[in-house]
Amino acid sequence: MNLSTHHILGVEDLNNQDVELILKTAENLKEISLRPVKKVPALRGKTILLCFFEPSTRTRASFEMAAKRLSADTLNFSASDSAINKGESLLDTVRNLQAMDPDLLVVRHGFSGIPHLLARAVRCPVINAGDGLHEHPTQALLDLLTIQNIKKKIKGLNVAIIGDIAHSRVARSNILLLTKMGVKVSVAGPASMMPAAIDQYDVEVAYDIREVIPKADVIMMLRIQRERQDACRFPSLREYARFFGLNKQTMKDAKKDVVIMHPGPVNRGVEIAPEIADSPHSVILDQVTNGVAVRMALLYLLCGGKEI
Amino acid sequence: MNLSTHHILGVEDLNNQDVELILKTAENLKEISLRPVKKVPALRGKTILLCFFEPSTRTRASFEMAAKRLSADTLNFSASDSAINKGESLLDTVRNLQAMDPDLLVVRHGFSGIPHLLARAVRCPVINAGDGLHEHPTQALLDLLTIQNIKKKIKGLNVAIIGDIAHSRVARSNILLLTKMGVKVSVAGPASMMPAAIDQYDVEVAYDIREVIPKADVIMMLRIQRERQDACRFPSLREYARFFGLNKQTMKDAKKDVVIMHPGPVNRGVEIAPEIADSPHSVILDQVTNGVAVRMALLYLLCGGKEI
Amino acid sequence: MNLSTHHILGVEDLNNQDVELILKTAENLKEISLRPVKKVPALRGKTILLCFFEPSTRTRASFEMAAKRLSADTLNFSASDSAINKGESLLDTVRNLQAMDPDLLVVRHGFSGIPHLLARAVRCPVINAGDGLHEHPTQALLDLLTIQNIKKKIKGLNVAIIGDIAHSRVARSNILLLTKMGVKVSVAGPASMMPAAIDQYDVEVAYDIREVIPKADVIMMLRIQRERQDACRFPSLREYARFFGLNKQTMKDAKKDVVIMHPGPVNRGVEIAPEIADSPHSVILDQVTNGVAVRMALLYLLCGGKEI
Repeated sequence: MNLSTHHILGVEDLNNQDVELILKTAENLKEISLRPVKKVPALRGKTILLCFFEPSTRTRASFEMAAKRLSADTLNFSASDSAINKGESLLDTVRNLQAMDPDLLVVRHGFSGIPHLLARAVRCPVINAGDGLHEHPTQALLDLLTIQNIKKKIKGLNVAIIGDIAHSRVARSNILLLTKMGVKVSVAGPASMMPAAIDQYDVEVAYDIREVIPKADVIMMLRIQRERQDACRFPSLREYARFFGLNKQTMKDAKKDVVIMHPGPVNRGVEIAPEIADSPHSVILDQVTNGVAVRMALLYLLCGGKEI
Repeated sequence: MNLSTHHILGVEDLNNQDVELILKTAENLKEISLRPVKKVPALRGKTILLCFFEPSTRTRASFEMAAKRLSADTLNFSASDSAINKGESLLDTVRNLQAMDPDLLVVRHGFSGIPHLLARAVRCPVINAGDGLHEHPTQALLDLLTIQNIKKKIKGLNVAIIGDIAHSRVARSNILLLTKMGVKVSVAGPASMMPAAIDQYDVEVAYDIREVIPKADVIMMLRIQRERQDACRFPSLREYARFFGLNKQTMKDAKKDVVIMHPGPVNRGVEIAPEIADSPHSVILDQVTNGVAVRMALLYLLCGGKEI
Repeated sequence: MNLSTHHILGVEDLNNQDVELILKTAENLKEISLRPVKKVPALRGKTILLCFFEPSTRTRASFEMAAKRLSADTLNFSASDSAINKGESLLDTVRNLQAMDPDLLVVRHGFSGIPHLLARAVRCPVINAGDGLHEHPTQALLDLLTIQNIKKKIKGLNVAIIGDIAHSRVARSNILLLTKMGVKVSVAGPASMMPAAIDQYDVEVAYDIREVIPKADVIMMLRIQRERQDACRFPSLREYARFFGLNKQTMKDAKKDVVIMHPGPVNRGVEIAPEIADSPHSVILDQVTNGVAVRMALLYLLCGGKEI
């Protein structure tokens, strides 16, 4: 069975069979990371280019780890060492990389749509590892795998996404993927962080997190991207933490078996209190583990890996 | 058959047999990059140190790709993470790296002659990946391979090199290599960009590109290195583009089957118009592809690779 | 035989059997770096994370080389591309990396005790590659291997350590390791560079290097860390070089077969004159070679490598 798409540019391009195939493949590959020898020769002789035009820790490391567990070679390529500083266009840079015959390109960029632009310029598959305020499909897929692992089902669940909905590609990809898979999604956050066009999505909107927490099976907290906030969208971090952060007080009406997720990096004491981040409800580190598995699955499926 | 030289410091050190052996080996290895499994075990267990003391995209990536396709390990080493910042001399840094028993050193440096200095300090082979205004031998070799691929011959061709001849190591290495191989070379550019000692080379010199274009089988455009120009050598980029750039107007008397080359990164609209860079005459991306092949050949020949 | 410790956080955690096992294993593995194919499959499928939160050349390269010679995969992770810049705590960063199931963490950090903190947060072994002013255990082990190689014994030797004793983790680890192994250690340097608590160690203290040089079998020079000196601890580099640097004059009463060591990077003309650094007494480059062997041994022993 194959994916219906040559690239992973966004959740929008995936149909339900694709999503199920990705999750199933990830489940199968996950076991490799628990072996003493964490490596299979599935992608031996394949070269994966990691083009991170925005700084990244976990996502780059996760893709690199995934590639190496499948025996692929990786080549890191960042904005700072790029010919773009010498006046070359991004398209020319990528056409040049393509001319070296890589097997797959992973791209993160601060501008929305760049992975789509590049996908049209190269022959090999492109995976979007986050583009501007647009999409972060591998994050949504690993979140879905995490939910399925714990809740043993997806359809019919109630997921609350809390925080800066307007400026989060994680929120956007999750809303699209979860609603596609039959999840009831509610979003909550300050009005200044709610996208103007939120009513175009099939989600419930709240401006008080106490409205969404009691019925949520899963709560996804978004990171306050302090380094990206160009304008002040709330009076203070302290006030944000009090009204929109997850803590003992705001959690008091939550379900007993509620699952807490966060894409990381966590601002402890801002969007989530340390005692919640470290509580048994939190699956933040499972998300990271599943991230490697989902990326292995995508590399495997897109590069036409041999029998595992 | 072996190279007559232990290092590749410049085109000057290569005799005609060396050049032919390199091109032949590159042709043989090129096919590997087209396989589904792009890897042969020829250099398994060899370690290639990539020491780029100047920023670089394509050249570093090209060497890294070449090394990995031959199963060599690579270790990146850049100026910024170097002990040189702690007051160590460059020679000591390289002697230290040598003490870790690498099999080959690839060096790029902003000062002319640094690869030669280092070659005297280490036991392993050194490849010059560009030194100051001096030489860039692997670029000249990949250019030659590209010309041979398309024109099916080298000797007797007419090659025009256009641009900042004085400040281009690419021009210098190409002039030396092409004249050595029996090519008629002409150079053209503004008088301010022509080296004072240009008459020491066996080339025709012109200050108007219309003199060299009509008879050229191959036109090599040089990059205007905007980031290196410390003084203004021409009134404006616009004027440069008009009189020395390749565009429909300046190309109108060119041969029907003229081949256009550029070492990259391209300043579109400065030394070359987009419609020329993307035209069927352009082999810019073939140059990139051939770069990997030529570097594979050099690593293979210098590291004493096993049967492929 | 196994190490008595799960981590290598400092020399203090190693007993004499551990040290002997490490040296013996390093001796065995050293031969691999001299083979034409410098690679054994001992750690195939293992992933080593190299987390250097302080800039480093030789130590990072040495660990990376060591890992690759044992066929382990490496993943570089530096402070600059870290999520720490996005407000994440160091502990969260490392917990995240741990969730990707690496097999070993190598950590360098400017603050003392960070490797210990991280070792408590992760399941896999941690090697301290230098923490603040505290310890640099792999340097002390490679120094010991170098001494043993040349002097054919350790116990009963007389080793003088000269320089900024107070601010050197190299000095601290060496004092601890050498005294543990039965070496008579003397330290010498300006009073401003002698730790207040130096009398807690079993060492002879001198403020004039002429007191320690004549009886020394081995002289270890410390680097003047010009980039770290926040306050002026001596009048000038010139004066330091004259009174505390190793040169023909200060060396004149040294033993005929004295061995000169330096952890690098060397400030030529400051703590050591070029003619001494390059003399037959100097084993500075042997230290570098042995560094790869010692790190191979530690990776091998901590990752439970298969038969070599």
